[in-house]
Amino acid sequence: MAVIAALGSGIMATALSFPTSENGNDVRLVGTFLDREIIDSIQRTGVHPDLGLKVNDGVRAYQLEDAAEAIADADVVMCGVNSFGLEWAGEQLAGLMRPGQKLLCVTKGMRADEDGTMHILPDVLRSYFDPQLAEQVSWNAVVGPSIAGEVAVHHDTCVVFCGQDKQDLEYIADLFRTDYYHVWTSTDFVGHETGAATKNVYAFAAGFAQGLLRKAGKQDDRYVMYNYGAAVFAQGQKELRSFIKLMGGEPETGDGLGGVGDMFVTSMGGRNVKAGGFVGEGIPFSQVQEERMKGVTLEGVAAIKVIGKALGPLTERGVIGADEYPLCRFLYSVVAEDAPLEMPWDRFFRDLK
Amino acid sequence: MAVIAALGSGIMATALSFPTSENGNDVRLVGTFLDREIIDSIQRTGVHPDLGLKVNDGVRAYQLEDAAEAIADADVVMCGVNSFGLEWAGEQLAGLMRPGQKLLCVTKGMRADEDGTMHILPDVLRSYFDPQLAEQVSWNAVVGPSIAGEVAVHHDTCVVFCGQDKQDLEYIADLFRTDYYHVWTSTDFVGHETGAATKNVYAFAAGFAQGLLRKAGKQDDRYVMYNYGAAVFAQGQKELRSFIKLMGGEPETGDGLGGVGDMFVTSMGGRNVKAGGFVGEGIPFSQVQEERMKGVTLEGVAAIKVIGKALGPLTERGVIGADEYPLCRFLYSVVAEDAPLEMPWDRFFRDLK
Repeated sequence: MAVIAALGSGIMATALSFPTSENGNDVRLVGTFLDREIIDSIQRTGVHPDLGLKVNDGVRAYQLEDAAEAIADADVVMCGVNSFGLEWAGEQLAGLMRPGQKLLCVTKGMRADEDGTMHILPDVLRSYFDPQLAEQVSWNAVVGPSIAGEVAVHHDTCVVFCGQDKQDLEYIADLFRTDYYHVWTSTDFVGHETGAATKNVYAFAAGFAQGLLRKAGKQDDRYVMYNYGAAVFAQGQKELRSFIKLMGGEPETGDGLGGVGDMFVTSMGGRNVKAGGFVGEGIPFSQVQEERMKGVTLEGVAAIKVIGKALGPLTERGVIGADEYPLCRFLYSVVAEDAPLEMPWDRFFRDLK
Repeated sequence: MAVIAALGSGIMATALSFPTSENGNDVRLVGTFLDREIIDSIQRTGVHPDLGLKVNDGVRAYQLEDAAEAIADADVVMCGVNSFGLEWAGEQLAGLMRPGQKLLCVTKGMRADEDGTMHILPDVLRSYFDPQLAEQVSWNAVVGPSIAGEVAVHHDTCVVFCGQDKQDLEYIADLFRTDYYHVWTSTDFVGHETGAATKNVYAFAAGFAQGLLRKAGKQDDRYVMYNYGAAVFAQGQKELRSFIKLMGGEPETGDGLGGVGDMFVTSMGGRNVKAGGFVGEGIPFSQVQEERMKGVTLEGVAAIKVIGKALGPLTERGVIGADEYPLCRFLYSVVAEDAPLEMPWDRFFRDLK
């Protein structure tokens, strides 16, 4: 039995309370300043309003002012905020965590310097820690195709816990493993985190075909546009794998749960796909963001804005070639410059032998 | 302008008559002995009954007895039969084709010797030819994510023409390229053909989740089973890539149109996914084949029966390890031995670093 505390009570951190609490662990969900109503709901009724499910008995919810109490004696601390709250979470966790604790990052995304150098989020979190404390904390993350609600209702889910130390990873994984939550471990930390971040880039593009069909009034036709979606998916996979190599990860990671598997599940639906659908209909992205999906968290778009933007300086510095990542570059032009949806097919698949 | 003749007037060969005829080529569809009604329909009304569309004016349909006339002066001859008719097509084409003609194989699948040695279909076709003629014919194939009807209605489609000679490939590709039919070329013949065959293996597994949901009465629930499907897809991708390496192809081919892109489109629906769905519901596969889907062509199941069966002798001979291809082995036990659907998750993703 271990104590597992999450900072951030979003749907993913809350979904993970199911396998962990069923394994007999003491599981605690700490809300951010944005989560007050969620925590209040769980405290009163047990129900997570966004997930639409009652958490297991014994899972305790804490408002932010009780974070210290919840986290002080935790064995594992999950960072469960979304990517927009990552810096805030870094500040908080730097003050709350103690030597010997193990961090498990649920947040997915990237950060980039002005010169295009990219950083995985656990490294960004770490940058807020006192260097000595950072050395005494174990850094880990969970990646792989997992829609939160499916974990919560006990549907088979396969994920990878990645980090620096195999022993720490196996210790954490054992706290989470059940007959429906299948956990592998990997020390390809940067490769898995890069795959998990970049897959969100391509999920946005997965919505285009449906939008194009709606625009043409063909969404109920016998023949839809799977060929289009599959070509985008294939180019996305090529670029995802290149990003992993660029960041120093194992290229093989792109094939597995943290690469193509995660991209597959993210392409099946969700907010990023929906946003891409509006672009497919011909609506400029700025209008999608300001009107159609105002206030909605779009992790895919956030990833495009960071990673797509980094491609410019990386190209200028000669780190990557100008013909690399044509799909990511195009997606950046869509979200940053309202470029119309003219897919640059002839720039794809250029390295075929 | 060139003459392009297809032996076999199925939906894929017929769909390819759209871009080729729009490019001004003389396009001819020759029916097999099973295609008499299709040819009759096209001759009378222009409509391909299975595709549900009228072919372009100028595309001519021929009954089998007129095959020699249709093929004699063709520049490109397509083999458009399904994999069950491949040997028959080999016998026919060996007598019909002439030196200098270029063959483009549309049929997808594999053949294996008793000892597990596998062969791509163009090589099987070739084995029926007089050796001298075989040397004087150019061997090529089309692969990539293309649902036939989508090509026919002019939706963007990206494919790879693969073969031995880059110049021949570019010649053929130029006859097919339009603003919606995007063609790349590659001399990784064996890699692309292997990807195209093995992707059908995994499409069958893509149906399981929907069947499991129906069995549980949960198909309309808020949370379905995309995590399950994504994990199967990721393991499928790992194995597809391994098969390409095993056959001597370029591993990178697994990432692109002929690998993951094709597997993606095939997983979106169709007969193999439907058959997998019945297995997900708990129906033994033999019963699916003899009752629920009697007489239906299942290319995925055919691929499992060939490739899955080959894994036994390949393992005995030490060519592959016993822990390799666990998903393909499991799928073979489902179709060959009516094994129940207990997914062997713990045998997946074993090579994680």
